[in-house]
Amino acid sequence: MLQQKILISLLTVFVLFFCSGTPPIPPLADQDPPNIILVFCDDLGYGDLRSYGHPTLATPHLDQMAAEGMLFTQFYSASPACTASRYALLTGRYPIRSGFDWVLYPKSERGLHPKEHTLAEGLKAAGYRTACFGKWHLGSTQSEYLPLQNGFDTYVGLPYSNDMIPPKWPDIALLSGNDTLGVNPDQALLTGLYTQQALAFMKEKDPAPFFVYLPFAMPHVPLHPGAKFKGHSRAGTYGDVVEEIDDAVGRIRSALEEAGLSDNTLMLFTSDNGPWIIKGPKGGSAGHLRDGKGSTWEGGMRVPGIACWPGTISPGQVQRAPANTMDWYTTLLNLAGQSIPEDRAIDGDDLMPLLQGDTLLDRPFFYYGPGNRLQAVRKGPWKLHRITSSQTGIDYFDGQLPLLFNLDQDPGERFDLSEQYPGKVTELQSLLNEQSEATESAGTYWD
Amino acid sequence: MLQQKILISLLTVFVLFFCSGTPPIPPLADQDPPNIILVFCDDLGYGDLRSYGHPTLATPHLDQMAAEGMLFTQFYSASPACTASRYALLTGRYPIRSGFDWVLYPKSERGLHPKEHTLAEGLKAAGYRTACFGKWHLGSTQSEYLPLQNGFDTYVGLPYSNDMIPPKWPDIALLSGNDTLGVNPDQALLTGLYTQQALAFMKEKDPAPFFVYLPFAMPHVPLHPGAKFKGHSRAGTYGDVVEEIDDAVGRIRSALEEAGLSDNTLMLFTSDNGPWIIKGPKGGSAGHLRDGKGSTWEGGMRVPGIACWPGTISPGQVQRAPANTMDWYTTLLNLAGQSIPEDRAIDGDDLMPLLQGDTLLDRPFFYYGPGNRLQAVRKGPWKLHRITSSQTGIDYFDGQLPLLFNLDQDPGERFDLSEQYPGKVTELQSLLNEQSEATESAGTYWD
Repeated sequence: MLQQKILISLLTVFVLFFCSGTPPIPPLADQDPPNIILVFCDDLGYGDLRSYGHPTLATPHLDQMAAEGMLFTQFYSASPACTASRYALLTGRYPIRSGFDWVLYPKSERGLHPKEHTLAEGLKAAGYRTACFGKWHLGSTQSEYLPLQNGFDTYVGLPYSNDMIPPKWPDIALLSGNDTLGVNPDQALLTGLYTQQALAFMKEKDPAPFFVYLPFAMPHVPLHPGAKFKGHSRAGTYGDVVEEIDDAVGRIRSALEEAGLSDNTLMLFTSDNGPWIIKGPKGGSAGHLRDGKGSTWEGGMRVPGIACWPGTISPGQVQRAPANTMDWYTTLLNLAGQSIPEDRAIDGDDLMPLLQGDTLLDRPFFYYGPGNRLQAVRKGPWKLHRITSSQTGIDYFDGQLPLLFNLDQDPGERFDLSEQYPGKVTELQSLLNEQSEATESAGTYWD
Repeated sequence: MLQQKILISLLTVFVLFFCSGTPPIPPLADQDPPNIILVFCDDLGYGDLRSYGHPTLATPHLDQMAAEGMLFTQFYSASPACTASRYALLTGRYPIRSGFDWVLYPKSERGLHPKEHTLAEGLKAAGYRTACFGKWHLGSTQSEYLPLQNGFDTYVGLPYSNDMIPPKWPDIALLSGNDTLGVNPDQALLTGLYTQQALAFMKEKDPAPFFVYLPFAMPHVPLHPGAKFKGHSRAGTYGDVVEEIDDAVGRIRSALEEAGLSDNTLMLFTSDNGPWIIKGPKGGSAGHLRDGKGSTWEGGMRVPGIACWPGTISPGQVQRAPANTMDWYTTLLNLAGQSIPEDRAIDGDDLMPLLQGDTLLDRPFFYYGPGNRLQAVRKGPWKLHRITSSQTGIDYFDGQLPLLFNLDQDPGERFDLSEQYPGKVTELQSLLNEQSEATESAGTYWD
């Protein structure tokens, strides 16, 4: 059975190669805008897939997706926390521009500001059918914060984190559109429900391209695998919920193939932040990286990143250049032929050159910590921390700051090089100062 | 160019599948004994290959070897130190049975005892041509300790570690057979030299099957990449020397293919112990695992393990069952039709059932630390430490012992479960006691 699956997928790749001729990749301008599926996990760590080195967690469908597309080894979420990360993903902007702190609660008064322009709004304007199934977490106390008012035609999901539950938060609402479908749903059904909704939406008879945003509630605690996945994994309950997501990815990819849509669909996979390591065995693993969720060490913000688009992205690529979730906003709007708003700062860049093998984008990436405080910057292989923080409370370098690391040579941030490279420290400190000034003077819609 | 390579390798796998029919794997009894190539790295860490999750180290040839064969995620060397590990590999016996401490120096009086039976002796008796190119490290003060007296027809290499150099150790000898070819060789030439010797030996016109044992000196410090590989890697000098080994593996696999020998050659790849993390950026990475060389934490002894034998081992397999280097002794002698000695304890098992997809071997694995002291045991997913040690000097659990971990669910040994599972502690303690009694009462040839 496994051999059959491998055979089928190898045949797919084989046929794809054979039929594509030379040059294998047609120019984008000749193509219709692709369908887009964006799978966004919650608290999935950098080390939690087999293709990222996990010894026992089995993720064959995600590994296959990477083998048929591009696997990023230095892909970042724009924040180590849920709300801020989702804001950046959907607006292409650093979380500090949002005006809210990094996590919203069910009673938080704020939410996505009406003036923000979302990826879904842009794709909808380009003629896409748009849907969100899963964790929203960009505001829920007013309907203007919810998905339907921010570019999505359809929404089913929990509007905030799955640990915001009774007794502290009574009556967690499962929404359908703006309406409450039920309260305190059985969380073991959520991954299956979101997947089912996505599959149904994809299959609707409609000539318009579709955009499916699938922010799964798992593997955020509390962990609730579906009945079929309880005890599925060698890696415990955490493994069970990740393997259920892997299976969902496999089902979606099979559905694309059956419908003949594989070559016209760009499928993306990533996570909102690193693993919640203080949750012990209920949290994931950052693999080679230091620390996890809530921290601006690499483990807090570097996450799995996979892009698959047969016929347009060559198979089997390992991309070691840094990229981040904000880039998807710019990339996807460009693909859809939509202009990028010019009345505001947009922090994402178009990744198509990188996806098609061109040279690296030479730009800094900024790490925002608790309270959207700017803590660190990366440029090329160099990362400078001017402030560090960790939910574990561990101060790995005894308060010594700044700290300089060469991430290409030292992904675990173990060997401080600030004394050896004072010029690099100065250069990166300047970048931090410039970024602080620019973002603070720009203000937010809430000001 | 890369695409061409991927295409060629995918075609290979494709053709292999298509031509193999059903059942795809012929019974072993119908086959001639295969050629055997055993690549044994020095201090290569669990996390140092892309296929084990390294973000920047590029190991495309090893990854391809794994994709066309079996990648072990829980493969162990039998010791966290060089000499003891090599003893176990070549004799199929735990290092405590050797009678020497775990590392030999150029002036150490001991070496491999004449009564020991090596893998090379067994294969030679079965009609193999046998060669060793690289780091021996099983004794050098008397010729009886050297490769030619222990089953190898041919030897070129340093007989001990590449850090045993002037001024402390004047005149490090590069041997050819029992003779000194030169002293203090340029270490930047070693990986190339050993590879070249292996390629030449493989190509000799001789109907006998060959056994090539290739214990590279790298990536043990001091790191010396060949001229072509200086600056080759994004991952620094450590990356350079590993990428040179990856290239060597690619050259050997190409040579096999050109000679039409791929399907009749079992190629194995592993490391003698974990990364020497106290060497800072000159040491490797254990990835998901705790600690490194010299320690009985997983990072000290769990290493990359790859087996490739097209037509006999199905491609694309990830093997999560534990296995270890001592198993190769038993496996390879069985394949060669040689009987396993019955006058001594042999600690390795035949891995062919595992390589061909059968069920897991249900047996304990023992972790020996400094001075061949028995420190920990693993059975199934459970590992019990009764003593811990680390070259870093870090005591991760404040002297608390014993410590119990579920390695399948917690590969990083972060969550002690000894209080929750007292029965498991007792069971594993009994295994440790039994093993201590059995090995101590058995004595060694040196007694």
